[in-house]
Amino acid sequence: MEQLSGDILQTKYALDTFYFLVMGAFVMWMAAGFSMLEAGLVRSKNTAEILTKNIVLYSIACVMYMLMGYNIMYGGVSESGWLPTGMAFGLGEENTAEALLAGGDDAPYYSKMSDFFFQVVFVATAMSIVSGAVAERMKLWAFFAFAIVLTGFIYPMQGMWKWGGGVLDTAGFLDFAGSGVVHMTGAAAALAGVLLLGARKGKYGKDGSVNAIQGANLPMATLGTFILWLGWFGFNGGSELKVSDVAEANAVAMIFVNTNMAAAGGCVAALLLARLWFGKADLTMVLNGALAGLVSITAEPLTPSPEMATLIGAIGGMLVVFSIIIVDTKFKIDDPVGAISVHGVVGIWGLLAVCLTNPDATLMAQVMGIAVIFSWVFATSFITWMAIKSIFGIRVSEEEEYEGLDVGECGLEAYPEFTTQSRS
Amino acid sequence: MEQLSGDILQTKYALDTFYFLVMGAFVMWMAAGFSMLEAGLVRSKNTAEILTKNIVLYSIACVMYMLMGYNIMYGGVSESGWLPTGMAFGLGEENTAEALLAGGDDAPYYSKMSDFFFQVVFVATAMSIVSGAVAERMKLWAFFAFAIVLTGFIYPMQGMWKWGGGVLDTAGFLDFAGSGVVHMTGAAAALAGVLLLGARKGKYGKDGSVNAIQGANLPMATLGTFILWLGWFGFNGGSELKVSDVAEANAVAMIFVNTNMAAAGGCVAALLLARLWFGKADLTMVLNGALAGLVSITAEPLTPSPEMATLIGAIGGMLVVFSIIIVDTKFKIDDPVGAISVHGVVGIWGLLAVCLTNPDATLMAQVMGIAVIFSWVFATSFITWMAIKSIFGIRVSEEEEYEGLDVGECGLEAYPEFTTQSRS
Amino acid sequence: MEQLSGDILQTKYALDTFYFLVMGAFVMWMAAGFSMLEAGLVRSKNTAEILTKNIVLYSIACVMYMLMGYNIMYGGVSESGWLPTGMAFGLGEENTAEALLAGGDDAPYYSKMSDFFFQVVFVATAMSIVSGAVAERMKLWAFFAFAIVLTGFIYPMQGMWKWGGGVLDTAGFLDFAGSGVVHMTGAAAALAGVLLLGARKGKYGKDGSVNAIQGANLPMATLGTFILWLGWFGFNGGSELKVSDVAEANAVAMIFVNTNMAAAGGCVAALLLARLWFGKADLTMVLNGALAGLVSITAEPLTPSPEMATLIGAIGGMLVVFSIIIVDTKFKIDDPVGAISVHGVVGIWGLLAVCLTNPDATLMAQVMGIAVIFSWVFATSFITWMAIKSIFGIRVSEEEEYEGLDVGECGLEAYPEFTTQSRS
Repeated sequence: MEQLSGDILQTKYALDTFYFLVMGAFVMWMAAGFSMLEAGLVRSKNTAEILTKNIVLYSIACVMYMLMGYNIMYGGVSESGWLPTGMAFGLGEENTAEALLAGGDDAPYYSKMSDFFFQVVFVATAMSIVSGAVAERMKLWAFFAFAIVLTGFIYPMQGMWKWGGGVLDTAGFLDFAGSGVVHMTGAAAALAGVLLLGARKGKYGKDGSVNAIQGANLPMATLGTFILWLGWFGFNGGSELKVSDVAEANAVAMIFVNTNMAAAGGCVAALLLARLWFGKADLTMVLNGALAGLVSITAEPLTPSPEMATLIGAIGGMLVVFSIIIVDTKFKIDDPVGAISVHGVVGIWGLLAVCLTNPDATLMAQVMGIAVIFSWVFATSFITWMAIKSIFGIRVSEEEEYEGLDVGECGLEAYPEFTTQSRS
Repeated sequence: MEQLSGDILQTKYALDTFYFLVMGAFVMWMAAGFSMLEAGLVRSKNTAEILTKNIVLYSIACVMYMLMGYNIMYGGVSESGWLPTGMAFGLGEENTAEALLAGGDDAPYYSKMSDFFFQVVFVATAMSIVSGAVAERMKLWAFFAFAIVLTGFIYPMQGMWKWGGGVLDTAGFLDFAGSGVVHMTGAAAALAGVLLLGARKGKYGKDGSVNAIQGANLPMATLGTFILWLGWFGFNGGSELKVSDVAEANAVAMIFVNTNMAAAGGCVAALLLARLWFGKADLTMVLNGALAGLVSITAEPLTPSPEMATLIGAIGGMLVVFSIIIVDTKFKIDDPVGAISVHGVVGIWGLLAVCLTNPDATLMAQVMGIAVIFSWVFATSFITWMAIKSIFGIRVSEEEEYEGLDVGECGLEAYPEFTTQSRS
Repeated sequence: MEQLSGDILQTKYALDTFYFLVMGAFVMWMAAGFSMLEAGLVRSKNTAEILTKNIVLYSIACVMYMLMGYNIMYGGVSESGWLPTGMAFGLGEENTAEALLAGGDDAPYYSKMSDFFFQVVFVATAMSIVSGAVAERMKLWAFFAFAIVLTGFIYPMQGMWKWGGGVLDTAGFLDFAGSGVVHMTGAAAALAGVLLLGARKGKYGKDGSVNAIQGANLPMATLGTFILWLGWFGFNGGSELKVSDVAEANAVAMIFVNTNMAAAGGCVAALLLARLWFGKADLTMVLNGALAGLVSITAEPLTPSPEMATLIGAIGGMLVVFSIIIVDTKFKIDDPVGAISVHGVVGIWGLLAVCLTNPDATLMAQVMGIAVIFSWVFATSFITWMAIKSIFGIRVSEEEEYEGLDVGECGLEAYPEFTTQSRS
């Protein structure tokens, strides 16, 4: 009897671990999504550079999170809830069958390594958000330097405050899969960088004019959006952390449905708003609308009904269109891919929308969480960018910007045969 | 003892639900596949528009199926087997552990929400098939209007007749994963649209000449085909609906193998036929051959041996080459991506091929199913397209067609830097 | 009680089968990865041809492995350990619940068909490696003829020696997921072909100069790398063959983590070395670095710690940069995508690195395995290429090479609108 009971527990452990790994692989795939999205939305002359940035930032995130970040985030919290206690090197011991079978509230129910895998792809997501916003004018190595700091320190600290059981968690701040911890974090870090970096040459005229700079490859950008949409099933679906009984399986299924519906709602809403506003079915707005729907539902993909999820996503989809236009034309903040709007503005919306359907949420706790995370990430990012700027500089020369970062930073071109006149 | 037995049931429920969700995610990925395939096979000036169509139709399909379609299709059937009884709003109650543990024939064994997720990505597949056939000359918003009707009403009605337990199911019509319910449905709706829409300007000369219009980006089209191939493991593999015991796991494994072999057979057969016929290894025919192999096996991926599946796929692969040439040169029906041949003609082949290996199939029931589904979808689609045509019009102006739908409908270009002379 | 115990066994069987199928689907996806990688790294005029090669070789591999290869590899070994005993046609009987429940050491624990599916996508991987190395000058049909021989005979023979329980397995040669059996095999076959084929026109000048020939579409190549990275979780993760208890689930999780870390290590190391050596962050080297990290860890992804895996990958990433430069400039072996370096040189490194962390490994056995596999594959491949050369020829005409293989072999162009001057 005990033997059978142990067998079932082991099978559940295996199922939960496997689920976690598959969901993690889906999130890892989002790295490809960001790469394609950003590569499609920049000009051809800066495409190889942004591809390099994306694949390398993912790698840096993995290394830094293994060396430091995971321990900071999940290695324990000080009594105050603000400081990490787990600064030891290494990822620690894997869980054992003995610990599982011993039972009790602290018994592990999936592999610690699968947890690390799932968490590490989240850090990379946060960092990916930054790369689009600073595209087409930042020095490659300044970006990498920042990636080291964000993924090794800035992200894990605020992650610990919420998911590591720290002060925000205690305060009742709710962020299921990371509208704040991941998306707003990426956007806040990006905003700090963009403010220090300035706009691309030719983006804003001295007469106050705003020039649209078109992306070179929209099929690539669309592919990136589909990849992100697919990957998000892992992002939100895996954040339930367990699937192995009826209640948990139902929860994961609900999260899949709501994630999908929010994206659909955001996509349609952005399309309609763009059509009404600009008179055209602007594809880039449609793509950003779908992504905004996904960001919107990420803070709470479980408690809404599918209809409500569609609505939450639709509001996100409209919000992102307004935000992109306002950030660009009013604030003159040059964000080539709209990352600050998609992940920052809509991330905040997602965190507030938790209050609509989750009775455990309070507006106060949500606002506090937003304020704490944003302040922390923006301030530390600003300081880091400043330090990098003063030591190496963060912006390429005007000539390199004109010639394209591909040749300047990477020594090659992304499409050497296609662009007869790539210096635009 | 009862506790343990319940634990096992819950674990199986979780495994089946998780399997269903992963398979559904694979099918969702097919939306990206259709997007890339179609974006690669049209001219660059119409690429952003077809991308917009694809991501938005997926979103419309999700919303309409949630609001209406799922209930029509799976909400119950009238005594006659022709009409739905489940018209209530909403997706209904999730299954409970109590219902599972109560047992009996009606006991649920996976999450209802996971079922909705799996089904909704099928509707989107059917609609995706339409978008390729009407490419490069249809008004974007006419297409969206049609998408609402197909995904909310036309598709669910015939789906209910078969998978909802209606008249075709009772009659013994067999269609495991939807050669008919999904693929032929998409093709029939597309055919109705194309007949009303007419050919692209310059496609057929007044002297009877037939001009080939080349796709702008074949790597994209190839990527789309690979995505569809991968997604099809979910499409067919998930249609077993269960994996959690030896017999079911074996069945799912057999389906994976047969799906893969049929695609391989279709690919090689189309290659050889194209080589013999045209003297060249025509890549677009090879891609369509692989897809035809997949469509061929979709009506019955379980009962054939792998060798037989390869053969069924190979016949599909040859059939599609003949069909594309005949549809184009004899009937002068302009289908830019060959969707009517791949999904319609080969879909019919797949439905007939069920009789080769499944002893429960009868030719009569298969023919009846084909006739009923085709008639219903073609007739209702034709009426719908006619209504849209008379109210809004379905075809863009000659000038817009010449300039490209990207600028006309979307206000941007897909490849602004690459096509020095994109107006071809 | 026995009923319950049987239920648990069936559930485990289902979980292991499902795990195997999902991992197999990930590996199948690598076929798309190789296609995109290679399509991005060749010139536009040879792109349709390499796409055709890739999708067709995958199909040929599936057919040949079904007809012959699987039986050769897993159908039994002669007493000497060198010859196959299982030459019967067909894939044999599926496992039954009875066999599972009978228990014992030989009891199956997952579906035989899922095993075939997993194995068949491995063969295709080996063959994919060849296609990049011989790109831009080989006759398409010569390539297909070789694919038939490699996937039906050459690969399965050496696979049988190791994974089929043959002589290399007995000798203690360790190759967990195929640094040797798959990757070095592909590279050895490619090397034999390239030596007979010669370099592309214009690659090496008579004066000893070495000309770099740039790939036409680096976003495509980057996408391919990400696809391969994702697929590799299935490649290595599935090679554990079981997930359904704590120890196995932990092992699979560790493999996922190590696979990911090795790729990250390879990526960063190649970046740094390229930066130091060439002064630029060469994207193609970064991509090859990530792939090299993956190949490095494939022979032993389980026993290293994540930190060690990062290091093993990093060494692979540096090695590939050196190797690509040396193969190109010293040996003047023209390998357009660097396949021989990535899969061959680094594959050997991976096999040797097993000794660093796995106490069961011996340097002698590893060297013997390398020598045996390399000799067998190189020799039989060389003979096969020679035979094909003498019968059909393996190289296209100079004019066709100049005009591009797309028009010559496939009768179409990959990017008909983009390349105003594609004859470079």
